[in-house]
Amino acid sequence: MRIDIITVLPEMLESPLGCSILKRAQDKGLVELVVHNLRDYTTNRHRKVDDYPFGGDAGMVMQVEPVDRCISTLKGQRHYDEIIFTAPDGEIFNQQMANQMSMLDNIIILCGHYKGVDYRIREHLITREISIGDYVLTGGEMPAAIITDAIVRLLPGAIGDEQSALTDSFQDNLLEPPIYTRPANYKGWEVPDILLSGHQAKIDEWRHEQAVERTRRRRPDLLAD
Amino acid sequence: MRIDIITVLPEMLESPLGCSILKRAQDKGLVELVVHNLRDYTTNRHRKVDDYPFGGDAGMVMQVEPVDRCISTLKGQRHYDEIIFTAPDGEIFNQQMANQMSMLDNIIILCGHYKGVDYRIREHLITREISIGDYVLTGGEMPAAIITDAIVRLLPGAIGDEQSALTDSFQDNLLEPPIYTRPANYKGWEVPDILLSGHQAKIDEWRHEQAVERTRRRRPDLLAD
Repeated sequence: MRIDIITVLPEMLESPLGCSILKRAQDKGLVELVVHNLRDYTTNRHRKVDDYPFGGDAGMVMQVEPVDRCISTLKGQRHYDEIIFTAPDGEIFNQQMANQMSMLDNIIILCGHYKGVDYRIREHLITREISIGDYVLTGGEMPAAIITDAIVRLLPGAIGDEQSALTDSFQDNLLEPPIYTRPANYKGWEVPDILLSGHQAKIDEWRHEQAVERTRRRRPDLLAD
Repeated sequence: MRIDIITVLPEMLESPLGCSILKRAQDKGLVELVVHNLRDYTTNRHRKVDDYPFGGDAGMVMQVEPVDRCISTLKGQRHYDEIIFTAPDGEIFNQQMANQMSMLDNIIILCGHYKGVDYRIREHLITREISIGDYVLTGGEMPAAIITDAIVRLLPGAIGDEQSALTDSFQDNLLEPPIYTRPANYKGWEVPDILLSGHQAKIDEWRHEQAVERTRRRRPDLLAD
């Protein structure tokens, strides 16, 4: 799998893409992550990628030209399954989308910045607009890192223990049951006896009950689906 | 304002907290961002912070002891308004929460990692559990960066143009209208005439209509609130 990220702040993505699971997945050859500086696709002397909005308004707008040039260059090199724009008004990202996207071959993610991007980019160049949640951020770089992380950790071999991803929250529409580790008693805060009992069948039953109960209390919407 | 972030991967937060608006807000003295390596709060020789789950299961669990030691140390130094844990089953983060939290003085954000944290941490040490969305990530570091970014950009003086934050999506429960910048015609893709007309009142009316129409089509749930 290959993910190309287009940004005006490539340095912002350095440590998120260069640590932990994302680093190991790249080292293992499971994914190729390529960050493109949008300014490399400008033709003006100041490498400017934004301008004032038509009709007046606060903030600057990313221009269609360098974005078109960058995306066209990439599309000339290989087929892309999706060209994603991270936008607060896109479809809300969720685990099902991460699952689906983990099966694609090539993805471009365009990070918005400033006040937004020229709407013609969204109309003509983008195939899918994704929001990671109902909040406004400085730019699309962290959302691009989030989407990348959620997808890449699902690639076979990316996380050490395959079992671990399968029991994550959302994979079965249930939140996870409480988990505990040593010590069994910390300052009087105790681990539930059942977990120390050694009866695996009873432990599994308790965990399922806890998962259902926690989901019912915290996220009843997940059970309604 | 001060935000303390507790993590086993401090290096992952380097570039997100050290770039763009977050860097400028720190340079201007609007916010102090302090990242703590959880391993500095261990007492064992290998600086180990995790162990196997009681009752058996895949994945490792973050232990209560170093987290308690780190949070207690910080609480000994100042009062914290919230001690946040980033968890996929927490309350879903949104713009209203960002607005509220931007008015607090001191916040701790604990980043989960591995399979999760010992549940006693959540029961006894955490005041608020926040999820940035319904998807599973490698760890809580990117969510902590997202929450920090959403909050800090609201601090007066953090973004260049105050007006710009006020007209963002979600601040008035409307998505933003389409925006455009030069050139007015790019490969035959044209900017709507109204935006070039110079009639500001008509432009404002068009923008409002577009915002309502886009919200109705894409996110009718926002209008229902």
